[in-house]
Amino acid sequence: MQAAVLTIGNEILKGKTVNTNAAHIGRVLTFSGHTVVLGLTVRDVREEIVWGFRTASQFADIVVSTGGLGPTFDDMTSSSFAEALGLPLVENPEAMEMIRSRLTARGLEMTENRRKMAMMPQGARAIRNLAGTAPGIYLEAGGKKYLVTPGVPDEMRSVLENAIELIADRNVRYAERSTLVRGIMESSFAPHVDEVMKMFAGRVYIKSHPRPRGPRGPEIELEVSASGQDPEGDVEGALRELERRAASMGGEYSRI
Amino acid sequence: MQAAVLTIGNEILKGKTVNTNAAHIGRVLTFSGHTVVLGLTVRDVREEIVWGFRTASQFADIVVSTGGLGPTFDDMTSSSFAEALGLPLVENPEAMEMIRSRLTARGLEMTENRRKMAMMPQGARAIRNLAGTAPGIYLEAGGKKYLVTPGVPDEMRSVLENAIELIADRNVRYAERSTLVRGIMESSFAPHVDEVMKMFAGRVYIKSHPRPRGPRGPEIELEVSASGQDPEGDVEGALRELERRAASMGGEYSRI
Repeated sequence: MQAAVLTIGNEILKGKTVNTNAAHIGRVLTFSGHTVVLGLTVRDVREEIVWGFRTASQFADIVVSTGGLGPTFDDMTSSSFAEALGLPLVENPEAMEMIRSRLTARGLEMTENRRKMAMMPQGARAIRNLAGTAPGIYLEAGGKKYLVTPGVPDEMRSVLENAIELIADRNVRYAERSTLVRGIMESSFAPHVDEVMKMFAGRVYIKSHPRPRGPRGPEIELEVSASGQDPEGDVEGALRELERRAASMGGEYSRI
Repeated sequence: MQAAVLTIGNEILKGKTVNTNAAHIGRVLTFSGHTVVLGLTVRDVREEIVWGFRTASQFADIVVSTGGLGPTFDDMTSSSFAEALGLPLVENPEAMEMIRSRLTARGLEMTENRRKMAMMPQGARAIRNLAGTAPGIYLEAGGKKYLVTPGVPDEMRSVLENAIELIADRNVRYAERSTLVRGIMESSFAPHVDEVMKMFAGRVYIKSHPRPRGPRGPEIELEVSASGQDPEGDVEGALRELERRAASMGGEYSRI
């Protein structure tokens, strides 16, 4: 299925924080059989988060968000998510229990700011967060799946792991592998990349990345990926063809 | 002005590559007096790149893109950018000269794939890329500024540096600084963050990030930022107020 990743947080847009979360989510979605078609990053602004969920769900069947689930004033993902879907925001009993047991274990009081983390759209399922207080939110609505995760990387990973069975597609497998070609310029090798992709009739995707010039001249990383029934076989076949062509042009290659 | 960053490339969506480019561009835009309001990442697919430029320009006055300017089949940013703006794609003489002189210096031939890198929307200005062959593209259209940069990080940085005078806003200054508060939970300190922001009537933005629990208990990073005439003064005033409140709750703090 097609998937989108929505990142919420000014610090990402400002570049104060590098968006490693989106990369991790993209990785997990890809290896779970999905094609990530869109990434959106919005500010901690209600209307912009609402827009983000709506736009992501326009292009994707699965939307995974990260950020804005904490206790502070600018954590408004849950209520914005409810608004985007036109659902009422209600106290989720599962979420409340998760928060309460975590606070109790630490000898902390329930406060208004902490209670906020149990507010979820009606019909949502709370997903356990083993690395922090705010539970994740899972919801199916309008034929789409939504997973809302916190922004702290460990917490995002915990929620994503605990929801993976709900979002993984077990019918599609994915494989990828790269080869490093030395001694040929990317622009000289480009026509071969085109031709090899055509040989595999849409089953294989090849991305070429020029690398900093090495001691043996230009270097290109060729990343081959495939989804489907036999992705490993397709990837292997395409790599062999690329390597054969590189060798015939006097290039060297090595799998990476 | 409001700015948007558009990243083009499947490898970013898949999470194979972490989007450090968007962070760098976000940093440069922020310190150049702009507010980054949106980040978009799209695949190497023509219609999606067109959508990306149109959507970004709907929300921002300045759009900076990265990726898809190279010589391979999936480098289609320039033509998609022209399509998004409804401009014809023409051979840019400045760009052609930049490419030709780089190829000559390396004893390389002009090929169809390399010539493609000189094709730009009509009216565009080629921006020198000191780290690679593909020049950047600068264009003003419909009251908006566009800067199109390559995806290889060194090349993106080179083009961004060479275009900074065209996009920087010299009338607005930006400042940010953080303090680390120890011994207070984020959810306990959240109401103070709200109050201090209100004290500075919209001039100051405070983001709180919980950090992994340290030896002295919970830790919160408070990032204070401001834009305007005296951003340093506002940041300093807000930090002092936050630290005073942290101390009165028994917390410790240190500038970071």
